[in-house]
Amino acid sequence: MGDVAQRLAEIVGADNVASGDAVGDDYTGDETLAGDRVRPAHVVKPGTAEEVAAVLRLATEESVPVTARGSGTGLSGAARPLAGGMVVSFERMNAILDIDTTNHVAVVQPGVTLSDLDVKTAEVGLGYTVYPGEMSASVGGNVGTNAGGMRAVKYGVTRNNILGLQAALPTGELVRTGGRTVKTSTGYDLTQLIIGSEGTLALATEVIVKLHPRLAHGATVLAPFPTLDTVMNAVPRIVSSGLAPHILEYIDAFTMAAITHTAQLSLGIPDDVREASQAYLVVGLENRDADRLAGDVEAVGALLAELGASDSYVLEGPSARKLIEAREKAFWTAKAAGADEVIDVVVPRSALPAFLAESQAAAARTESGVVGCGHAGDGNVHLAVFQKDPDKRARLLHEIFAAGMELGGAISGEHGIGRAKKDHFLRLEDPVKIELMSRVKRAFDPAGILNPGVLFGRED
Amino acid sequence: MGDVAQRLAEIVGADNVASGDAVGDDYTGDETLAGDRVRPAHVVKPGTAEEVAAVLRLATEESVPVTARGSGTGLSGAARPLAGGMVVSFERMNAILDIDTTNHVAVVQPGVTLSDLDVKTAEVGLGYTVYPGEMSASVGGNVGTNAGGMRAVKYGVTRNNILGLQAALPTGELVRTGGRTVKTSTGYDLTQLIIGSEGTLALATEVIVKLHPRLAHGATVLAPFPTLDTVMNAVPRIVSSGLAPHILEYIDAFTMAAITHTAQLSLGIPDDVREASQAYLVVGLENRDADRLAGDVEAVGALLAELGASDSYVLEGPSARKLIEAREKAFWTAKAAGADEVIDVVVPRSALPAFLAESQAAAARTESGVVGCGHAGDGNVHLAVFQKDPDKRARLLHEIFAAGMELGGAISGEHGIGRAKKDHFLRLEDPVKIELMSRVKRAFDPAGILNPGVLFGRED
Repeated sequence: MGDVAQRLAEIVGADNVASGDAVGDDYTGDETLAGDRVRPAHVVKPGTAEEVAAVLRLATEESVPVTARGSGTGLSGAARPLAGGMVVSFERMNAILDIDTTNHVAVVQPGVTLSDLDVKTAEVGLGYTVYPGEMSASVGGNVGTNAGGMRAVKYGVTRNNILGLQAALPTGELVRTGGRTVKTSTGYDLTQLIIGSEGTLALATEVIVKLHPRLAHGATVLAPFPTLDTVMNAVPRIVSSGLAPHILEYIDAFTMAAITHTAQLSLGIPDDVREASQAYLVVGLENRDADRLAGDVEAVGALLAELGASDSYVLEGPSARKLIEAREKAFWTAKAAGADEVIDVVVPRSALPAFLAESQAAAARTESGVVGCGHAGDGNVHLAVFQKDPDKRARLLHEIFAAGMELGGAISGEHGIGRAKKDHFLRLEDPVKIELMSRVKRAFDPAGILNPGVLFGRED
Repeated sequence: MGDVAQRLAEIVGADNVASGDAVGDDYTGDETLAGDRVRPAHVVKPGTAEEVAAVLRLATEESVPVTARGSGTGLSGAARPLAGGMVVSFERMNAILDIDTTNHVAVVQPGVTLSDLDVKTAEVGLGYTVYPGEMSASVGGNVGTNAGGMRAVKYGVTRNNILGLQAALPTGELVRTGGRTVKTSTGYDLTQLIIGSEGTLALATEVIVKLHPRLAHGATVLAPFPTLDTVMNAVPRIVSSGLAPHILEYIDAFTMAAITHTAQLSLGIPDDVREASQAYLVVGLENRDADRLAGDVEAVGALLAELGASDSYVLEGPSARKLIEAREKAFWTAKAAGADEVIDVVVPRSALPAFLAESQAAAARTESGVVGCGHAGDGNVHLAVFQKDPDKRARLLHEIFAAGMELGGAISGEHGIGRAKKDHFLRLEDPVKIELMSRVKRAFDPAGILNPGVLFGRED
């Protein structure tokens, strides 16, 4: 360990390495609820892409497992290190290198937070449209998990908003993939391959993100529905309407009560309506033109009524903002309420009613609680799972994941597999695909140093 | 050869295999201008995914090179087979398996043509928005080259419009990637990896494509500009405007004269304006609402004037349709005019003026002709190259490709590398990236049977 620490110090400077007991608690995991935190042997904080590459070369030579870390806000344990391994923290590589208003891209280092990028791009009327609900998250972390969030229904997920990368390979080289162009057809799309690979293939050292114009006018419509089924059947119709909401969230009655209570937020919904509502839809609309927005708000109100909403409310600016913020904090509310796990199965939109029914049935069979909210427009459901018994919880999760996959969906829409869901993933996924992915992994990382035990493989 | 032919017949039926002299001329290449056509040893026409997988297993066992073929409309030679190899033609696998109006996807076999898919999806008011300019192209071919086309400026390229695949691996297994969901974060994105791989990694046997609502109202605005530079500087401004054109094409004066002459199309532009115009922009707008469209047409006219257009004309329906069709046929016009090569470099939009200037300079140095048109909104330029001398032409192409890459672009935006541009690609691209791609290739195709010599590798 001493020798590795010494050589890391030679690469990044002694101030930017900590080893053994000097490793701070922050570096022992991310926000994943399940599983224990693990103290790595080293934390190293490179300042340049070349330093990242040199660190990886050393790790390959010395067979030291490497876990990349942005802001540590992940929910699947992909930033949970291994004992004996090292964390490469991108906290010093947090510069916005360029905001290019002609090509509508920003070039950033991976450690930049969404919050910083949001502020800087707003100054020129543009924005990076991935809002995973936690603005302290880093762009590098977005790349790792293929982060989504509320606005994905209109703007897509991270994968759809990254045009290029510079990345350090585990073998110690730097490569540039993609660029400031919107398309290429020149060999395999390494950008797309690295996005969502949860730190197992290469580490992004620079990211080219797409920017979109910020639209001047926005409105938020809240609609209570008598049943969860009615909400879920309404979702595909709203997506098909052409109204192009940038937010289309469902929130079940339990979750709505919890998040509004936590946020001390009153939405002005009469008690009798609230008591008769099993779930809510939140529809966000935006337009560059105020009149067009007003027309769309009217149209969405009519559509919601037609689709069985009990009513619909156009929220005032501050209420709207608070509700969206409260929804974004749903994870923290669930955590505070004692949730044992938070998962994010995605299914085809049409399968939402069946998926939620099957999740409730699985919860009943295991005497567990399952409540939630989610990106209904994407078919992406965030469920908070309440079940203290680890065996029952594992059974419940397995049944929910299996139900999602059976309906044509996947275990995770945006949180990733990480360490937390790996066992389920390996049991449920086609072994031919797992083996193919393992071969791709070896093509990038022959020594197997990058996040061993994440996605697949042993934890060593 | 006899043994392989016999075994192929056992897999797909004797009627669906041709060998030796029985192989028709159609199977000896695609539409690529450069290079010779090559007769393969066998053509096999599987009818099911399982048959494709069995054919590939046989090819791996017998080390027979395999070239996949959709409609043969490619422009980079990725569907040009090897002598001694086999062509797997998807002409029999041309069914539309499902049009899912709830999830807005279609599930199709790879041999379905864009034309068939367009007709069927139109019946339910939806559409697959990749229009590469040749409606006889197949969806499988789109997947192979990551095809683009005029509407990519709004809807993205193939990569952005495919949600999942079933694919046959060269080792003979079938895998399913992605699905009817709009996002997943469950391991490496094999869908994206296979898209654009030009038949070198796996063969798509089923494709899940995104569908978009067809908007009821559309308009086409044509604007002549005094110089190419003025056009190119206008492009980023129109993209930034929020008017979201679904077509944003430039056509240089030479190309406009050629395509309108070929199409016998009169656009009603006065002679004096035409003679003073070096280039044109074609701006397509669409909306679900007629009034909003009218407002946008007015706004785009004002913007074009501000950006230096000599004038702008809202084309009548038939003229608009004919101009778009004539533009789509620009490749055929160039071919008929004796063009020796057609290329499709992509650069950041801001680099368009510099790229065109450098292309003209390179043409002057080699006494060649270079004229063109292209997807200006994407920075994707289609240049017809007139130079009979192969050495001069190779030098010219190298200089144009190098200029594009130097400006932050890539050799191809949508046509791919194939066989035609491989030598340039290998000379200009970072060797570390090439080596990484080769390792990914081996992870999929250890025996190297899939399209050897396309993208990289020897032709054997």
